[in-house]
Amino acid sequence: MADVNLSVIMYKKGDLRLEDLPVPEPKQGEVQISMANVGICGSDVHFWTNGEIGDFIVKAPMVLGHEASGVVSKVGQGVTSLKVGDRVAIEPGEPCRICKYCKSGRYNLCPEVVFCATPPTNGNLSRFYTHAADFCYKLPDHVSTEEGALLEPLSVAVHACSRANIGLGDKVLICGAGPIGLVNMMTARSRGAADIILTDIDEKRLEFARKLGAKLTLKVTSSDPRVTAQQIEEILGEPADKTIECSGAAPSIRTAIYATASGGCVVLVGLGAYSVELPILNAALREVDIRGNMRYLNCYPTALSMVASGQVDVKPLITHRYKLEQSLEAFEAARRGVGVKIMINCERK
Amino acid sequence: MADVNLSVIMYKKGDLRLEDLPVPEPKQGEVQISMANVGICGSDVHFWTNGEIGDFIVKAPMVLGHEASGVVSKVGQGVTSLKVGDRVAIEPGEPCRICKYCKSGRYNLCPEVVFCATPPTNGNLSRFYTHAADFCYKLPDHVSTEEGALLEPLSVAVHACSRANIGLGDKVLICGAGPIGLVNMMTARSRGAADIILTDIDEKRLEFARKLGAKLTLKVTSSDPRVTAQQIEEILGEPADKTIECSGAAPSIRTAIYATASGGCVVLVGLGAYSVELPILNAALREVDIRGNMRYLNCYPTALSMVASGQVDVKPLITHRYKLEQSLEAFEAARRGVGVKIMINCERK
Amino acid sequence: MADVNLSVIMYKKGDLRLEDLPVPEPKQGEVQISMANVGICGSDVHFWTNGEIGDFIVKAPMVLGHEASGVVSKVGQGVTSLKVGDRVAIEPGEPCRICKYCKSGRYNLCPEVVFCATPPTNGNLSRFYTHAADFCYKLPDHVSTEEGALLEPLSVAVHACSRANIGLGDKVLICGAGPIGLVNMMTARSRGAADIILTDIDEKRLEFARKLGAKLTLKVTSSDPRVTAQQIEEILGEPADKTIECSGAAPSIRTAIYATASGGCVVLVGLGAYSVELPILNAALREVDIRGNMRYLNCYPTALSMVASGQVDVKPLITHRYKLEQSLEAFEAARRGVGVKIMINCERK
Amino acid sequence: MADVNLSVIMYKKGDLRLEDLPVPEPKQGEVQISMANVGICGSDVHFWTNGEIGDFIVKAPMVLGHEASGVVSKVGQGVTSLKVGDRVAIEPGEPCRICKYCKSGRYNLCPEVVFCATPPTNGNLSRFYTHAADFCYKLPDHVSTEEGALLEPLSVAVHACSRANIGLGDKVLICGAGPIGLVNMMTARSRGAADIILTDIDEKRLEFARKLGAKLTLKVTSSDPRVTAQQIEEILGEPADKTIECSGAAPSIRTAIYATASGGCVVLVGLGAYSVELPILNAALREVDIRGNMRYLNCYPTALSMVASGQVDVKPLITHRYKLEQSLEAFEAARRGVGVKIMINCERK
Repeated sequence: MADVNLSVIMYKKGDLRLEDLPVPEPKQGEVQISMANVGICGSDVHFWTNGEIGDFIVKAPMVLGHEASGVVSKVGQGVTSLKVGDRVAIEPGEPCRICKYCKSGRYNLCPEVVFCATPPTNGNLSRFYTHAADFCYKLPDHVSTEEGALLEPLSVAVHACSRANIGLGDKVLICGAGPIGLVNMMTARSRGAADIILTDIDEKRLEFARKLGAKLTLKVTSSDPRVTAQQIEEILGEPADKTIECSGAAPSIRTAIYATASGGCVVLVGLGAYSVELPILNAALREVDIRGNMRYLNCYPTALSMVASGQVDVKPLITHRYKLEQSLEAFEAARRGVGVKIMINCERK
Repeated sequence: MADVNLSVIMYKKGDLRLEDLPVPEPKQGEVQISMANVGICGSDVHFWTNGEIGDFIVKAPMVLGHEASGVVSKVGQGVTSLKVGDRVAIEPGEPCRICKYCKSGRYNLCPEVVFCATPPTNGNLSRFYTHAADFCYKLPDHVSTEEGALLEPLSVAVHACSRANIGLGDKVLICGAGPIGLVNMMTARSRGAADIILTDIDEKRLEFARKLGAKLTLKVTSSDPRVTAQQIEEILGEPADKTIECSGAAPSIRTAIYATASGGCVVLVGLGAYSVELPILNAALREVDIRGNMRYLNCYPTALSMVASGQVDVKPLITHRYKLEQSLEAFEAARRGVGVKIMINCERK
Repeated sequence: MADVNLSVIMYKKGDLRLEDLPVPEPKQGEVQISMANVGICGSDVHFWTNGEIGDFIVKAPMVLGHEASGVVSKVGQGVTSLKVGDRVAIEPGEPCRICKYCKSGRYNLCPEVVFCATPPTNGNLSRFYTHAADFCYKLPDHVSTEEGALLEPLSVAVHACSRANIGLGDKVLICGAGPIGLVNMMTARSRGAADIILTDIDEKRLEFARKLGAKLTLKVTSSDPRVTAQQIEEILGEPADKTIECSGAAPSIRTAIYATASGGCVVLVGLGAYSVELPILNAALREVDIRGNMRYLNCYPTALSMVASGQVDVKPLITHRYKLEQSLEAFEAARRGVGVKIMINCERK
Repeated sequence: MADVNLSVIMYKKGDLRLEDLPVPEPKQGEVQISMANVGICGSDVHFWTNGEIGDFIVKAPMVLGHEASGVVSKVGQGVTSLKVGDRVAIEPGEPCRICKYCKSGRYNLCPEVVFCATPPTNGNLSRFYTHAADFCYKLPDHVSTEEGALLEPLSVAVHACSRANIGLGDKVLICGAGPIGLVNMMTARSRGAADIILTDIDEKRLEFARKLGAKLTLKVTSSDPRVTAQQIEEILGEPADKTIECSGAAPSIRTAIYATASGGCVVLVGLGAYSVELPILNAALREVDIRGNMRYLNCYPTALSMVASGQVDVKPLITHRYKLEQSLEAFEAARRGVGVKIMINCERK
């Protein structure tokens, strides 16, 4: 197989292929990037195995991958912020810049956003990729491109903790100890949270979380959300001020409501069933607000600063590494739920 | 029957009586009030007919009534803000003043609040009643005691519209055209909302709303919340920026989510089923926040200013009037759903 | 003089000329506008008479004018939101769309913004002008192009009242009863302010304000800001919750601080001396915040909705009208301080 | 001298005495505290040497001290949150609990607040003292009473950093490296600030700050605030997002404005001259908000959590220790500007 721009392409549900694509040229305001590292996200795996996520249906072949970093290899017209050789993290969406959401500082809600590996837009699990220069963030020398790729999940946490307004002295509940739960733990701690408890149904995940510094954990065993909430309250000493729900599981969302103090909030990061039965009267009368979380918004610079300053160490999240040529193997491992974060290196040997 | 302090007492489910009670004396910081007008609230009727609301169960005889006004008849020790003869509106709750909620400006969430006609606390459908002086608001001469009593539902709307952060130019959806929906319409308008649409399943209520100035109304006929949401969007021209849900009905809450624009919010004012199935994925991915609403908080002064300045005219909400002696008859009418707001006058003829 | 694109050009301090310029062609994303009405702003006059405002110095000939409306006469590539014949109000700045301010919903602070009649950018007091389509707002049929031009000062007020967070029941002080003070009065009222007091040193301006509905006014006569603040408090009944300072005069800013209640804020809209002595200890210990106000931000849609819905009537602000050919005369009148708002009509007879 | 309740009493300007006072008895809701440690604050020294601060004038003998901790020695009626033997930090003010400030979560602005060592209210540099139980915070076993006393200055920082809304990734300027500057540095770091620069005119203070972990410092040498601001920007790489001004010096406040990025804010913590000349046009056009800071508000629980969890280590702030009997000597040292924080131990040997 020729390899000018080897890419991981999902043709349709269950059909993933490595193929060579033409090398894209940067348009005005864009840069061409020689890709370095791309993490596999649950959504990549979900598109491959299910062919769709909610309203997003893969109808034509699409390159996967959106947790990415690389090295600028060509600079489009009008770009002054970057030059060839700059190592960058890539924020994978480009909004329209003219709608009311873009103008009012909520570009993550832009209905015209073009987002990597969200149909019909190609992702960047390739040798080469082009992207709007102002959504590429130059990495300092001491930040690796693997860390650059991890800015993507970290940005999700930066946005979620911002939506939850986590602050000094807060008691925080994080439901779900997967990669997103873990970066939320790190981010909540960086914002000054006093106590953070992580819950999961999988003891191995909690064990991994404790290795990364989690002090309070609870393996969920009860099927009654009120019981689980009571256990959480006993561990924290009082109800959680703010809760980040990362599992998407219905019982966990219900637990999140019961376990959150009056006047607090539950931020929904995990995605699960379209419709969920919720104890809405309990939430309403205690003014426990239920807030959504759509990707991220101006979070890459913050996430980069957290990593660059040493506030957080995201590297231990990577448990498995593959080369681009081994991508099918990597996705197979991801599908089996191996490890925490699988990273694919796109650099030519 | 002796009538020193005639009071409307609910003994147990379905058992409402008019009885004479001892006249209460004002403690330190309190005033004694010769009651003027008390509106009947849905919760008064619900306690009478069901014996309970959620966790609040009537276990001992309790005076009903909490939408109230009166005239100061005696002044307790240390009270300097009021004097005998002052006409006042009565904010019916008194929080503990020492918990974290009281100190952080969310006293409506105080777990120790003592609230009129919420078991086991007596309400004020009586000749005489005592209350913390700083929760009594002096009415200017041109504001009637009927209007004073109506500050209670109006305060609910002031709080709800504040939680929804309704502002200039907003398109607002109000679900439910009962008394609370109507005061929310008035309040949203006072905050500068551009377009307000009211929905209800009862055409008569919408007709009454239009008499009070509603420009956009929709009689809900579809059982599919997405269809209703689509109809609302067509009338408004675009989705609602903010939604105030006053019906408490599950299909209406679902409609509220679908009909609200990305980045907007739904405030839950109406109370219905404890648990409701909600399209949570739709809300989360569009960052449509779901916010509770517990009574009110520093809203009486604002509500009073709205009435006193003529910004709103709440008087037309009163469709029926009774004397305290006719209270059983008044409650019977309320139970049958007669009119909009029933007002009971407590003054001795 | 040829008149293909007659324009009002300021050559240097004191040197204003009417000249014909080439007709500009719309670039990608732009529209060409046949100009309808342009209001004269104090800054236009100031540039003409002083040659500079702060750091902005007129070094080359520049077309004046930025309070403008017109009719779309040509549509650039990629524009789908407007078509030839659409009547539009023109938001006069176009930010860079890629800096952190543009992305975080504060594009009014974009350091690369290109703004009409701010050197070295031309204004739109011309027959023809081109502008980014997404900063042109289509006027409904019942809103005139004169009203469209007035959306500019109204937007200043929408932003200022938003910065001040004026809301239901607020007591508001507005210092300065010129055009900007007047639109702030209208906007504060639309946001639900309970009492609004306007101050000025010119009784005629206050008289005009009362004709437009001002209920409380104070002619400032004392040179002691504490005395003036005391007078304001006496009229309002208590200190102002929020203050909009529109005069830019140092004594007025000092008065604004003294007259504002603890926990309130003073928004600085008027521009005067670069440095001002302020009673900062008084402000700091009472947490009276002093907030700036840079133009506007997402305010045109709101301002348009206020005018279109009839919430405000801005037309009475226009006291004098001129044709484009009479512009030198119009500026002469503006320099003499004649009337309130002078409007120049750019349509060919 | 008898020593039942030895107290440090300021009689008038310059006249400080150690005298025995009657032991106070706790009223309803109060506790009696056997005092443990009291830090000397600049305001204590200032009252002693000047007899007044702003509008607060010492007209009668007054006990000094308000940065305090102790052990509950008696419990008043109705107190359930504390018991004899509990070690507590004492928040030195008690607000009225009934005014609009108290009810809206801004009790620090309560005009009726009674505050230790603010005339005419006695402080707590005594053997025994009584205080509202709900403003006493129980210390966990591993938090010392010295740390308890230091919660007072730490609370000032918690409030200031909250007013500045310092968050993840922020670049922060702190002007003044005295005790308050230092606790602000610690608090800003705990809130996730990325880079913090401290300025001072005294190199020794900066050296002390570096020992406590300050990474960026600037000794101010220029008399031109623009020059100093430029130096700060060069060190930070860009202007500060938020600035905490702790010096109260006029040139430093001006520097704070110039050194803060557009859209940022300057929080005024340090108190100096009543009136200061400020480059207000620069601040206003860049929307650099100037915010006051009045003591603290719901900050003790947060400050305690920061200390108890080990997020901050405040103990190194204490450079000198005295016994209550040596208080005159301690104040003499404080007047000479010795060390950083002087702590007086009130326990009987």
